[in-house]
Amino acid sequence: MASQKSLGKGSCAPGPVPKDTIRLYSMRFCPFAQRARLVLHSKGIKHEIINVNLKDKPDWFLEKNPFGTVPVLETSGSQIIYESPITCDYLDEAFPQKKLLPSDPFEKAQQKMLLELYSKIIPYMYKIPASRENGENVSALEAEFKDKLSDLNEKLASKKTKFFGGDTISMIDYMIWPWFERLGMVELEHCITHCPDLKKWIVNMLDDPTVKALLFSTEDHKFFFKSYVSGKPNYDFGL
Amino acid sequence: MASQKSLGKGSCAPGPVPKDTIRLYSMRFCPFAQRARLVLHSKGIKHEIINVNLKDKPDWFLEKNPFGTVPVLETSGSQIIYESPITCDYLDEAFPQKKLLPSDPFEKAQQKMLLELYSKIIPYMYKIPASRENGENVSALEAEFKDKLSDLNEKLASKKTKFFGGDTISMIDYMIWPWFERLGMVELEHCITHCPDLKKWIVNMLDDPTVKALLFSTEDHKFFFKSYVSGKPNYDFGL
Repeated sequence: MASQKSLGKGSCAPGPVPKDTIRLYSMRFCPFAQRARLVLHSKGIKHEIINVNLKDKPDWFLEKNPFGTVPVLETSGSQIIYESPITCDYLDEAFPQKKLLPSDPFEKAQQKMLLELYSKIIPYMYKIPASRENGENVSALEAEFKDKLSDLNEKLASKKTKFFGGDTISMIDYMIWPWFERLGMVELEHCITHCPDLKKWIVNMLDDPTVKALLFSTEDHKFFFKSYVSGKPNYDFGL
Repeated sequence: MASQKSLGKGSCAPGPVPKDTIRLYSMRFCPFAQRARLVLHSKGIKHEIINVNLKDKPDWFLEKNPFGTVPVLETSGSQIIYESPITCDYLDEAFPQKKLLPSDPFEKAQQKMLLELYSKIIPYMYKIPASRENGENVSALEAEFKDKLSDLNEKLASKKTKFFGGDTISMIDYMIWPWFERLGMVELEHCITHCPDLKKWIVNMLDDPTVKALLFSTEDHKFFFKSYVSGKPNYDFGL
């Protein structure tokens, strides 16, 4: 499905969600929304996407999710689900084909603990470029970021598998991926040179048909990011 | 099972977890650990509890959970699970008797979204007493806290049920409860006077056999909290 231009304040609220379809409210360059898009694609779930202008949010969007964030799912029964891990778990449970979460309770808990660890890494991807933009010395932040990536590398190394949940791709890989796709965008590739297992994982991820299908080039990410930093995010870049 | 005194730095690591038992590393007055204790009790899971001195943590404890927080679960197969919502979900899945989470994917997502909303309320229970202790004016913080409690009240009111997940108690109620048990401890009862549904919910919660069994009086909570604020937490108070 071709991407549609984003809807902003004053736009008409979209009509009801067609039967047998699920709707995703998204923003094309948002890594959190990408999580849900990866899951929808990987599981082959019939869906439609409505892109939202996050700088100038429609009122009807804020009514659906008071937090104003993407991703948001809407079912044909008008059920609303938001927060990226919650949307992804919902999709995995509501659409039982090709399960992405392990059925074993402990393995599932391991993926959730890893996600918790990873949620403490994500902020560096925003803090470092922002500090750099302010002309600050980012070496201390980068050192912390590298340390945390080492921990992540260690987790993967100790598993001795291709992916974080085993030798096939699973939910946790899709949860982690979007920020690795953007390492070049924020010019932080040098922070994983000491992480051989993560580097191999990136190669494996880039070979996944779903990751490939939704991939933006570093150049495109950079273009969007520049517009975002300037205060005028170009949500429709390339459409 | 009688509570055991907390183990601190230099203590001997506990032996292996007996077969058919699950072990919880806890702290008697910790609201996050209370979540896991509520689930263990409500589901009737055979367990043992090891209390940890969180001010002076044993090395063996930090090896089990590098974050150094409670609750931590350990199985007889040496599997380790931490982070309170993850431990509770694990218990509900690994011990299928008396399911506390709904099986419907959307109802489960609703509980998770509510937990996310609630996680933004919890910090006020720490910020307000700390500001008060510093002699600051807390009226703005209290107003925010009241607003957020109104949102929570609204969620419950719109459901028209006794509990947050329906007319019987379920996971989300146990996740939310521990801080309501401590409203008097931090002298914030006046912040829910405008929340009739939450007030009714508290009455219903106090009637639940599991909540009752694990309840500390406001007086006891206050005693512990005072020791905690003074920098010398009395983890073994009352033993």
